Amino acid sequence: MGERITIRDVAARAGVSVATVSRVLAGNYPTSAASRAKVQRAVKDLDYVANAHARALAGAGRKTIAVLTYDVVSPFFAHVAQGVEMEAAQHGRLTLVASTGSDPARELALVQMMREQAAEAVVLVGGVIEDDEYRERMARYAQALAAAGSRLVLCGRPAPAPDVPALVVEYDNEAGAHAVTSHLLGAGHRRIALIGYQPGNTTGEARVHGYLRALDDHGVPRSDAIVHGVGFGQHHGYEAIRDLLREAGGKPEFTAVFAGDDRVAAATVVALREYGLDVPGDVSVVGYNDDPVAADVTPGITTVRIPAEEMGRTAVRLALAGAPPRSGPERHVLGTHIVVRESVAAGPGR
Amino acid sequence: MGERITIRDVAARAGVSVATVSRVLAGNYPTSAASRAKVQRAVKDLDYVANAHARALAGAGRKTIAVLTYDVVSPFFAHVAQGVEMEAAQHGRLTLVASTGSDPARELALVQMMREQAAEAVVLVGGVIEDDEYRERMARYAQALAAAGSRLVLCGRPAPAPDVPALVVEYDNEAGAHAVTSHLLGAGHRRIALIGYQPGNTTGEARVHGYLRALDDHGVPRSDAIVHGVGFGQHHGYEAIRDLLREAGGKPEFTAVFAGDDRVAAATVVALREYGLDVPGDVSVVGYNDDPVAADVTPGITTVRIPAEEMGRTAVRLALAGAPPRSGPERHVLGTHIVVRESVAAGPGR
Repeated sequence: MGERITIRDVAARAGVSVATVSRVLAGNYPTSAASRAKVQRAVKDLDYVANAHARALAGAGRKTIAVLTYDVVSPFFAHVAQGVEMEAAQHGRLTLVASTGSDPARELALVQMMREQAAEAVVLVGGVIEDDEYRERMARYAQALAAAGSRLVLCGRPAPAPDVPALVVEYDNEAGAHAVTSHLLGAGHRRIALIGYQPGNTTGEARVHGYLRALDDHGVPRSDAIVHGVGFGQHHGYEAIRDLLREAGGKPEFTAVFAGDDRVAAATVVALREYGLDVPGDVSVVGYNDDPVAADVTPGITTVRIPAEEMGRTAVRLALAGAPPRSGPERHVLGTHIVVRESVAAGPGR
Repeated sequence: MGERITIRDVAARAGVSVATVSRVLAGNYPTSAASRAKVQRAVKDLDYVANAHARALAGAGRKTIAVLTYDVVSPFFAHVAQGVEMEAAQHGRLTLVASTGSDPARELALVQMMREQAAEAVVLVGGVIEDDEYRERMARYAQALAAAGSRLVLCGRPAPAPDVPALVVEYDNEAGAHAVTSHLLGAGHRRIALIGYQPGNTTGEARVHGYLRALDDHGVPRSDAIVHGVGFGQHHGYEAIRDLLREAGGKPEFTAVFAGDDRVAAATVVALREYGLDVPGDVSVVGYNDDPVAADVTPGITTVRIPAEEMGRTAVRLALAGAPPRSGPERHVLGTHIVVRESVAAGPGR
């Protein structure tokens, strides 16, 4: 049976090197279509099954990268997971995914399982409410994983305490918020409502800081800032707009909206239309993330591109690059940039 | 160190049963918040790390479910993966994910790796070009996995040859296409253009069959059918509409469009607008999948809901339910239903 066939037999049968067979079997690109075909044929002819026991001893049982997100379907999480999976595959690793539903107890249980599965790295994705309990939890994960020869990677969330041996891969969230707010200010808008973010959540707060810093830089007094934090998610943006317009008797005191993410922005456009306000004719709208929806709706929504897939790839690349840091977090920040579409028009200042 | 602490110590410390500890650690719901807190506390106090070696011997090393999709970010694949992950977690399993990029050689290598990782089941998701090579490949996977005590689950793709020991979880794709086409016919449309599907792909072909069957049932001659298969994906729908309108000199010979999926439908609305045609005023549009975009665009797109998450859950439930079938596929079909939004108006027949 296949159990007795070795990778050398496959290489000999295919007339390629053992390295090529292993690259092909690992999906470890680049390999030519020709060698893939030869190896595939040889694997089939020999009904090759790598010897699980021998490979386990050789550490193949360890060849997984784990990624933990709040859910698997939000575009940001899905793209980070896709990046993790693609980079892991290039290194011959499979990817373990799990979703926490934002439940710390569930997160703890999953990190425990992933450690027991001997994942080479555990990647935690997404913003958090950063309190002592969180910092303490991350420190525990990092130390426990380091002790097991694995490592903790925090992706899109802040670095924990200075003595925590974690890898941190962030995107420049605040700079993106500053840039897109400046884009609105540059177009002549001054009263800009920031809506649809979760107060206390590190991702949302960084966007608020970028927004406020941009107002400062353009000499707009903080008294003109309009910040209505209700939570990420479509319905929150919808409610926020209705609240703001109801307070203002249907006539908005703002000429532009900075939505916490693109789905909020899409909902904002719908809500504004219900009050007879055109986008961008009456009110300009920008979002964040560059989710597919930003390109799918009319008008296309000007937004901030997050390098989600590249963050996932970077997390894996760094985790596999070397030994866990002796102490302290190792921080990497990827850039963001504006994607200009049709949802911004000139404001009263123009 | 933690290596010497057992799950019994944790249970004793937490004052709960070993089963409760294992359920909590496995994220195997339901568990009360109170017991989760107790167990979490005990795990922390004891710095508990389950003995990986002992657990591996006990089969914990096998506790993974593998899901293989073309990519991780398309809503359909992401929702199936989410369902797999949620159900797997409820059974104390972690989920392995990998994307094939539709490359058979890569699929083969990944199934091989997943078998070496001793996944309890390997779930392959999504439509295929069903040819002899495909049937032969699926038969090989199913037999190889069954021999390893694992099993093959085909999700959203047709059952292989009758002698292949695979589980098949499908959705009633053709019935959904029949229903949404009938919805258009019932609204008075007769010339309905079906666009944006990949000829030969089982998912697309089933939608064409449902469309044609609906035309037959409503007495619309096949000569009035308009089928323009170019491939799934937004740009294809866009091109298809431009082709059809260019041929017709800008004046469409159709009053409704059945788009192969919702992103195609969204692109169709944009393309029609560029020719000065209003949706649904001049042309009605329906899609398929009930992807988020269908609800996010204006007008909201009438579409067919696929139970993607439930398919993933069902795949895992069935795979863990019992021993691999002695021979032949075991087929389960989940229902689809129309989601009515604002993209359909009365046609000339009304």
